[in-house]
Amino acid sequence: MPMLDFWFDFASTYSYPAALRIAPLAATAGVAVRFRPFLLGPIFKAQGWDTSPFNLYPTKGRYMWRDLERLCGGLDLPFRPPEPFPQPSLLAARVALVGLAEHWGEEFCRTVFRAEFGEGARIDDRATMARLLAPFGVDPAAVLAGAQSEPTKARLREETQAAQAHGIFGAPSFVTADGELFWGNDRLEHALAWATRGG
Amino acid sequence: MPMLDFWFDFASTYSYPAALRIAPLAATAGVAVRFRPFLLGPIFKAQGWDTSPFNLYPTKGRYMWRDLERLCGGLDLPFRPPEPFPQPSLLAARVALVGLAEHWGEEFCRTVFRAEFGEGARIDDRATMARLLAPFGVDPAAVLAGAQSEPTKARLREETQAAQAHGIFGAPSFVTADGELFWGNDRLEHALAWATRGG
Repeated sequence: MPMLDFWFDFASTYSYPAALRIAPLAATAGVAVRFRPFLLGPIFKAQGWDTSPFNLYPTKGRYMWRDLERLCGGLDLPFRPPEPFPQPSLLAARVALVGLAEHWGEEFCRTVFRAEFGEGARIDDRATMARLLAPFGVDPAAVLAGAQSEPTKARLREETQAAQAHGIFGAPSFVTADGELFWGNDRLEHALAWATRGG
Repeated sequence: MPMLDFWFDFASTYSYPAALRIAPLAATAGVAVRFRPFLLGPIFKAQGWDTSPFNLYPTKGRYMWRDLERLCGGLDLPFRPPEPFPQPSLLAARVALVGLAEHWGEEFCRTVFRAEFGEGARIDDRATMARLLAPFGVDPAAVLAGAQSEPTKARLREETQAAQAHGIFGAPSFVTADGELFWGNDRLEHALAWATRGG
């Protein structure tokens, strides 16, 4: 089965529709997807940015929020931006890594994105994480301890370095088995098509 | 008939596929398109950039060239980037304004884009402009004189200001009659759909 890596940051606005769209589209295309959370922060810092480019360039930021609102409307996805933006995504990414190693990670990622951009929830505290973990029948305290453990912290750093090594500079990004990089929610279909034709 | 304004800069890479795609798609959708060349330079300068962001951020630039190559492959469009990039687009934009006032402008715009990104031609000199004008049965010397005239220069400045007033920060951009802004070649279909549903 062809593979596609789905690289995203929970702080990334366009990662929200991508995360909610990818599973059914990949199933139809016959592509196996790996969810790979990483942190854009260090990559943005290497470009000289200390926050989201949508904050650094307000005209672009205003456009993005309107564009995302339209997109979510067309996809029938709830839309309510979190404050502040961007949300610190470190904790959610670590929790997701724990879940992805235990098979409940993908649905947890969708749950986080829905809470953050559909309900405007803050995702940077343990209480929210515990609330979002509740439906999964796992022990939130144990999961959070695992998320804050050294191996998980190291793994997220390694994933971020791997993203950078693939030439990733934004999120969402998709990388095929033959190393083709596609950037942006609007490239998801292209990435799946590339993967199925032997990537 | 619904209207859609197609804002582009001849220096803009993704404006190439957009310019080549828009006429047939708009015809099918029943949308009237206005070609509106403008200059990104002053808009980029206002954001603190002195060249294309694809040059300022090399990782993003490398991705863009590969992405454009793939896109052109899928559209069966020839692809050969010009050097240097970006091409100074002032002269071509002024000539296009003359042509758009005289009904040969749209096809001339497509001709410029094909030469620039399909053949790697420089578009910043009068000789190239004269060569590209030849098939149109116009007098190149007269057209170039009109392009360098004060009214044309003023018109291009006004168009660039109008683009900025619409919140445009990149190219290609599409603006519907009700003021909805869509940015990027990959938003062309969305913009046409918005226009037809009463925009």
